[in-house]
Amino acid sequence: MKIADRIARLGTETAFAVSEDARLWAAQGHPVFPFHLGDMNIPTPENIVQAALKAIRDGKTGYCPAAGIPDLRAAYAEDVARDRGLTYAAENVSIQPGGKPVIGKFLQAVMNEGDAVLYPNPGYPIYESQIQYLGGLALPYGYDSTPAGFRIQREKLEASVTARTVAMIYNNGQNPLGAESDEDEMQWVADFVQRHNLILLSDEAYFHIRYDGRSRSIVSLPGMAERSVLLVAHSKRYAMTGWRLGAAVGPRPIIDVINKLNVNLESCTSHFVQYAGVEALRGDQKGNHDIVRILKERRDVLAGELQKIPGVKFRVPEVTFYLFPEVTEVFQRKGYTDQQAFRMEALHKAGVSFCSRSHFGRPLPGETKVFVRFAYSGINPDRIREGMKSLHALWA
Amino acid sequence: MKIADRIARLGTETAFAVSEDARLWAAQGHPVFPFHLGDMNIPTPENIVQAALKAIRDGKTGYCPAAGIPDLRAAYAEDVARDRGLTYAAENVSIQPGGKPVIGKFLQAVMNEGDAVLYPNPGYPIYESQIQYLGGLALPYGYDSTPAGFRIQREKLEASVTARTVAMIYNNGQNPLGAESDEDEMQWVADFVQRHNLILLSDEAYFHIRYDGRSRSIVSLPGMAERSVLLVAHSKRYAMTGWRLGAAVGPRPIIDVINKLNVNLESCTSHFVQYAGVEALRGDQKGNHDIVRILKERRDVLAGELQKIPGVKFRVPEVTFYLFPEVTEVFQRKGYTDQQAFRMEALHKAGVSFCSRSHFGRPLPGETKVFVRFAYSGINPDRIREGMKSLHALWA
Repeated sequence: MKIADRIARLGTETAFAVSEDARLWAAQGHPVFPFHLGDMNIPTPENIVQAALKAIRDGKTGYCPAAGIPDLRAAYAEDVARDRGLTYAAENVSIQPGGKPVIGKFLQAVMNEGDAVLYPNPGYPIYESQIQYLGGLALPYGYDSTPAGFRIQREKLEASVTARTVAMIYNNGQNPLGAESDEDEMQWVADFVQRHNLILLSDEAYFHIRYDGRSRSIVSLPGMAERSVLLVAHSKRYAMTGWRLGAAVGPRPIIDVINKLNVNLESCTSHFVQYAGVEALRGDQKGNHDIVRILKERRDVLAGELQKIPGVKFRVPEVTFYLFPEVTEVFQRKGYTDQQAFRMEALHKAGVSFCSRSHFGRPLPGETKVFVRFAYSGINPDRIREGMKSLHALWA
Repeated sequence: MKIADRIARLGTETAFAVSEDARLWAAQGHPVFPFHLGDMNIPTPENIVQAALKAIRDGKTGYCPAAGIPDLRAAYAEDVARDRGLTYAAENVSIQPGGKPVIGKFLQAVMNEGDAVLYPNPGYPIYESQIQYLGGLALPYGYDSTPAGFRIQREKLEASVTARTVAMIYNNGQNPLGAESDEDEMQWVADFVQRHNLILLSDEAYFHIRYDGRSRSIVSLPGMAERSVLLVAHSKRYAMTGWRLGAAVGPRPIIDVINKLNVNLESCTSHFVQYAGVEALRGDQKGNHDIVRILKERRDVLAGELQKIPGVKFRVPEVTFYLFPEVTEVFQRKGYTDQQAFRMEALHKAGVSFCSRSHFGRPLPGETKVFVRFAYSGINPDRIREGMKSLHALWA
């Protein structure tokens, strides 16, 4: 059966293979400590569940507008504008079945075949996959690990821009790094984007998973709102990953195109789920606060245990639910030469499952350090302690 | 703001404009009889709603596999196989957020840019939109209105095939025609597809909206299952249009590609909605039987009233929830020259809202007859009677 040529350009999330390894190991009766999951084992807040039930009872089970129900578009516009000191109308919002669909639709709307798009690496693998799938040139930009945290490699980024570079994907509160720009870096990125007349996709999926301080959006900086599309989602913020609800927020010309893509691709996002989404944004925020409190406890337990392991180096980020430690010293001391063998042995000898740097994009030229990602969104504090004790014994 | 060139090739459902006309007219305080809707004003069966609630309570609110939960894949495989006398495994099923996503994903999987794909016209407008959007050549095939119902124009279809024609979209139980192939036509299409070595998308969204007889699938014919992908959906069958749940069913090589597209585009279909979907397929079928009974009563009332109007000609189909009458005689007798003026006057003078043939693809060369589409899925029998009385007065 002949498959179309474009499929050869389609990437995937290789981290699914890690889940499969963990599942197979657990199925053989072994204990597994799941630090590989980007998912959450936290219930969706009750007020949101009740709103969904009420919407089903009220018959919100038929089609709704492709752009989303007016109330949710308005609620997202208010929410995004308030948090970022901007003005958005409901017409600037296109409701999506999750945050992920925004990536491909943004690229379809602004990138021609042969155009280039900048994206973070390590980063969410779907950026690269969709740029290449849609016929674009994927230009990765990297980070340096500094005492102040991960910092964008500005000179390399600047040097990689081509005449056909039309867009940049930026994720402040980054998966897998947990990286955040300081004021200087964010302003530099904003200047960079404007200097090269790029359109920006600002992936803000983790904007409300914050433990200290205040999330800032690059879209708030002067000159940025008119050239930026925001990716926002209920997924992490309200422990609704499996509900599939998010939105693209930005200038009308792009949002109108994304709405037209909605007509073609999904008809609409689940109707009653959108009513739950309105309650999430406009109702009591205790649910989100509880989620952040639960995750903060896990982060602190994980960081506390992990820093006891000799040769494991990291900085504790105030956003996301990931730690991205450098383990080069452990890797070398234990005589590993292959990162997947290193990962598999942690699973088979310590029961600890995590993703490697390689699950977040192809390593860049000159990379020599070894990093892994620990997610703490799907594992409770007691299991974190147990898992880390086990890993400590293996890596010490 | 520069929009990518491909967007110029993207079509839409122009029927949304009809909904908007009706909404604006109703907002001015006028009565509107909604025969334009492809949506249903029938509640989702209670056993399905209860299964969704239970799944939310059971914490099915996180991510699930991109291909769908194993139970739903298995349930769809059994269901599709049983109804069609075939064998499918869970691995032949890719769960989707509705039936519509199957169209674009099928084309992405099998059609290269420059390839041609055959599609029905009049037909669901997204076929043409997605073929052209993805860089293919959209080759329409038409129907003749015969005393036995609408029949595919075989000679024209045969003549339109080119060396680069790779696929055909076929919809037995067709929107907007309500057309069904007789045995001879279905066998002819199967032979045609095999003779030209095409891959078939069989859109079976209306397979279970049947009032008499038994639905047949072209995929059941010898040699077809291995070259066909089925589009199936919960939407109409269980009055779940707004839940967004459907599936692609077919050979592994294509389904695997569609699953990889799922990873890139949606992550997964709503998790708990899939549990509701399992209950729908495996639980009590009274819900579906009630839906069909309700629709049959409406069909009979609508057909009965419509045939009283002089110059309105149609055959009553046993599938779908549409009538597609020819109204050429009314059109000419009343002195119309423009089909949209004809439609708007029915709305403004009789309150009756319906779609025209032009909302289902560009008229083919040589078309002279005037057809309109009446949907009866979103209007109750008493309102059908009232609306038809009003239309009778206008058109008589």
